[in-house]
Amino acid sequence: MLDLMLDNVRRSTPLIHNITNYVTVNDCANILLAIGASPIMADEPDEAAEITSLCGGLCINIGTLNRRAIDAMFISANIANDRGIPVLLDPVGAGASALRTNTSLSLLDKARFSVIRGNISEISALATGSGAARGVDVNMHDVRSLDNTIALAKSFSKKTGAVIIITGAVDVVADAETAYSIYNGDPMMSSVTGTGCMLSAMTTGYIAANPDNLLCASAAAVCAMGICGENARQALAENEGNASYAKRIIDAAYDLRGADIAAWGKYEKLN
Amino acid sequence: MLDLMLDNVRRSTPLIHNITNYVTVNDCANILLAIGASPIMADEPDEAAEITSLCGGLCINIGTLNRRAIDAMFISANIANDRGIPVLLDPVGAGASALRTNTSLSLLDKARFSVIRGNISEISALATGSGAARGVDVNMHDVRSLDNTIALAKSFSKKTGAVIIITGAVDVVADAETAYSIYNGDPMMSSVTGTGCMLSAMTTGYIAANPDNLLCASAAAVCAMGICGENARQALAENEGNASYAKRIIDAAYDLRGADIAAWGKYEKLN
Amino acid sequence: MLDLMLDNVRRSTPLIHNITNYVTVNDCANILLAIGASPIMADEPDEAAEITSLCGGLCINIGTLNRRAIDAMFISANIANDRGIPVLLDPVGAGASALRTNTSLSLLDKARFSVIRGNISEISALATGSGAARGVDVNMHDVRSLDNTIALAKSFSKKTGAVIIITGAVDVVADAETAYSIYNGDPMMSSVTGTGCMLSAMTTGYIAANPDNLLCASAAAVCAMGICGENARQALAENEGNASYAKRIIDAAYDLRGADIAAWGKYEKLN
Repeated sequence: MLDLMLDNVRRSTPLIHNITNYVTVNDCANILLAIGASPIMADEPDEAAEITSLCGGLCINIGTLNRRAIDAMFISANIANDRGIPVLLDPVGAGASALRTNTSLSLLDKARFSVIRGNISEISALATGSGAARGVDVNMHDVRSLDNTIALAKSFSKKTGAVIIITGAVDVVADAETAYSIYNGDPMMSSVTGTGCMLSAMTTGYIAANPDNLLCASAAAVCAMGICGENARQALAENEGNASYAKRIIDAAYDLRGADIAAWGKYEKLN
Repeated sequence: MLDLMLDNVRRSTPLIHNITNYVTVNDCANILLAIGASPIMADEPDEAAEITSLCGGLCINIGTLNRRAIDAMFISANIANDRGIPVLLDPVGAGASALRTNTSLSLLDKARFSVIRGNISEISALATGSGAARGVDVNMHDVRSLDNTIALAKSFSKKTGAVIIITGAVDVVADAETAYSIYNGDPMMSSVTGTGCMLSAMTTGYIAANPDNLLCASAAAVCAMGICGENARQALAENEGNASYAKRIIDAAYDLRGADIAAWGKYEKLN
Repeated sequence: MLDLMLDNVRRSTPLIHNITNYVTVNDCANILLAIGASPIMADEPDEAAEITSLCGGLCINIGTLNRRAIDAMFISANIANDRGIPVLLDPVGAGASALRTNTSLSLLDKARFSVIRGNISEISALATGSGAARGVDVNMHDVRSLDNTIALAKSFSKKTGAVIIITGAVDVVADAETAYSIYNGDPMMSSVTGTGCMLSAMTTGYIAANPDNLLCASAAAVCAMGICGENARQALAENEGNASYAKRIIDAAYDLRGADIAAWGKYEKLN
């Protein structure tokens, strides 16, 4: 089943509207192209509604947040809701500043999200008010057992109606009833800026192509990203470090097909 | 003749002011350095006139358009006109939103451009009002025969006084009387974000170094970009995908010399 | 001694707040990760103070300056001063526009900096009012003898209280009494956008981890950047140009350890 999710992206080439940060935006655009989707970036409120309306998915990423982009986020999220376009929220650094936490909470209040993806500190900050992110990194005090992470994801899904993705050493993808724990990935991914952002952009491509299968599409995207991290690590040549690794992760996404997710995905599905 | 255009860039090392989007800006800067030009990026209205005045060319790219950059675009285009500095317009996504279409049309109304470069949907939107871009991609309904594309380019050149570049499977470069059809390039270029932006930045370097030869300089730049796409494809190693390919396109520009354009350029010149 | 500076970064993994330009921001983030630090980028005044307070160092880079970021720069510099957090200023293009020169001078007036890093035109513009940068490049008229460069650095350090880094064919790092002249590096570094920005980001990591050794930490960072340029050049494969070289510089930083700086650093210390 997970293998079909990527094949559907390549078949339907969805257009994805990204309101995102300027740190990792180029990598987000290229990973969307790598999977067969097409990116458009636009954060000016004056065109936000029009751009979203053209698209099959909307990715809202709050890194390098600013007032202009915040206005665009609300406009685009609402029009996406009106049109039935899947929306993903990546609350980068929620918990690290009141602006990030409050913008995320306000977006959750004013719009419906199909998927929310963050690390444990970001999701905790939004779900329980108890996270205290270390910048955009995880605060070690927030780390909890796999069972507790799954419980958090399920309860936050119940509250928001969104599929919740919590990325970490083991990734968790859950709706209110069902959870995947996903074991793909490579530790070197944490030495690259934007692996989280890239996963969020890519997941938006997956849910745009599979709007009736949000949980499965999200799990497939998370498996895919981990497999790309693994394959990129294998491909890494002598003398190559984190910058080359970043490119090789996108390269791996370019080569990946649905059957590879079926073959290499390492996950458990728990009801 | 085309070979001299690049040699003149390397000889004169023109400084190029870019008011551009934040998605592909790093690649635009590096491709300008690759050809021997020097980039400066600035989009704050308060310094736009001063920065343009220092430069030999101005590249206006409307991807990730915002109100601040729009103000800077008008200021810089006007000062460039006053000083006789060549200006290129890349109407990224014109036709996809009223903001992009109207900003482009208003720029064409208020300033003179040396070169306008876009895909067929973007140029159609500006020339005929009939384009309906698929985001920043071509809408297949806009694609027309080579003869019709050339006719569009020539008539839009007549209207604007600019050299028109329409990129696609075959690229067209034309002024009101003469057109080049250019056959260099590689299909994989469409899987990289920013090949259009990079071409626009690079072309601005070419016209800055060859201000009395805008048509020839533009044709040389388009040939060069296509050759870089071909050479990069040749250089692509096993396991490399679109992210590595993007870097290899710039690498190829770094290695390219005028004589290579003469040797590998595939084009027809039609009067 | 220089070798300990990098080892301290890897040991303490400082969080670095960057208010920086959108051209080179991704490379700045990745080079900070490469040395074992953690980057966060934020330029919205509403969160500037909070983000700076979380961090061990603040890097202010005025490339692609705009009003929003200027406000954030003053807020963050002041809170960093209040909290004793080291702050670095990279006055990109000072001398090229009144906005850049005046913003830099005003920052120097209203806040204290631990380190100021620029090329000779930028530092001259701030120290003597006599620079006239060629965009973000050096104006050849500003180049002076090594002795005069050192004298400039020392006197500007005396005036500002900051360690001064002037990068060029030979790099100079000085406080009011002591100067290092540093001979590492590779000419190809000037064909990559952002080597200066990357050095500034990286140096902020070094001073955050070595707040009581600002001069030595700065000298170590400058040696390290030069060594990375050398090692990246060695690692460059056939067909690779400036874009691949940019990635290989970061890759080299990822592999670098303190002992390598001790082994390969080429510098003189002059009292």
